[in-house]
Amino acid sequence: MSVKTVCVFCGSTPNVHQDYFDHAIELGKALAANEIHLVYGGGVKGLMGALAQATYEAGGRVTGIIPETLYRISQQSVGELVIVKDMHSRKALMNEKSDAFIALPGGFGTLEELLEVTTWSQLNIHTKPIVCLNTRGYWNGLLDLVRNCVQEGFITQKNEGIIVAAETVPALLQALEKYEPPEGRYGK
Amino acid sequence: MSVKTVCVFCGSTPNVHQDYFDHAIELGKALAANEIHLVYGGGVKGLMGALAQATYEAGGRVTGIIPETLYRISQQSVGELVIVKDMHSRKALMNEKSDAFIALPGGFGTLEELLEVTTWSQLNIHTKPIVCLNTRGYWNGLLDLVRNCVQEGFITQKNEGIIVAAETVPALLQALEKYEPPEGRYGK
Ligand SMILES: [Mg+2]
Repeated sequence: MSVKTVCVFCGSTPNVHQDYFDHAIELGKALAANEIHLVYGGGVKGLMGALAQATYEAGGRVTGIIPETLYRISQQSVGELVIVKDMHSRKALMNEKSDAFIALPGGFGTLEELLEVTTWSQLNIHTKPIVCLNTRGYWNGLLDLVRNCVQEGFITQKNEGIIVAAETVPALLQALEKYEPPEGRYGK
Repeated sequence: MSVKTVCVFCGSTPNVHQDYFDHAIELGKALAANEIHLVYGGGVKGLMGALAQATYEAGGRVTGIIPETLYRISQQSVGELVIVKDMHSRKALMNEKSDAFIALPGGFGTLEELLEVTTWSQLNIHTKPIVCLNTRGYWNGLLDLVRNCVQEGFITQKNEGIIVAAETVPALLQALEKYEPPEGRYGK
């Protein structure tokens, strides 16, 4: 597999459907089995924690990147931990270290992280794969929203393909491998 | 009106429905009439350009904040222009200067900007109003997406209220005035 390090964005709220946890754990095991290094937000709660723990316990490499202020609250970690000065440094480092992005379900923060790397791809700052794991159809709303943006002329038809959705973990790993950044991005 | 400066996020693609332009122009005139200073991304195309031009022509104050690389491409501007070194400095300055955020329709960049200030509100970094102008129901997809995030437990019920939608320009101005940041945000 040519993807060596993935950055995963996901929620950290604890009380969510078991299907989300099952998928996060399955992904963690699959990353370890495929020797893909996990870079993530460094939390120990919710899907973030489940994913990191599953990867680590299956023998995978895990690096959490967390801002000082958030680390002071929990003081817990899984695998390697990098403590950075703020949210901006966290994102910069998460992006720098990884060669693909995965979004599991999450809240406003996850949505923003996903759309930020999407915007950067559109601006041709990177050409890395961006794949959402569509557990319980969680990302259907985003896919509908983007489709409407395209229909209304605010996003080009080709750029709709910057974000790819996968229904299962095996499909997600395949999508990472066969990902082609759309043509027609900025400056192309 | 207590809001003195608004930061408006919106698209800059030219070929979109006239309704979007009409709303952008109506907003620009309303900002000028209410002596609200417009801070925006500094472009001259699409809704960005229409909004800035309408505000400026109606006697309003307009400040565009644009990264060097983008300015070099168009070399045009409306009102005052601040040229900054990169996208990050642009966002930081746009946020610093304004006391409310408005989103008109736009693409990935607009979505990301909107979700970034929403995430910052959730983290209690600011308590500024965030209002979307829902021309042609453009933001319905986002509102549905957020509602599903709440239902599935990734966003709290109260935090759904961080983003407010308005169907008309007068309703938007009212929403800015009566906005209450939800309780239960981070650290609250
Ligand atoms: Mg951002």
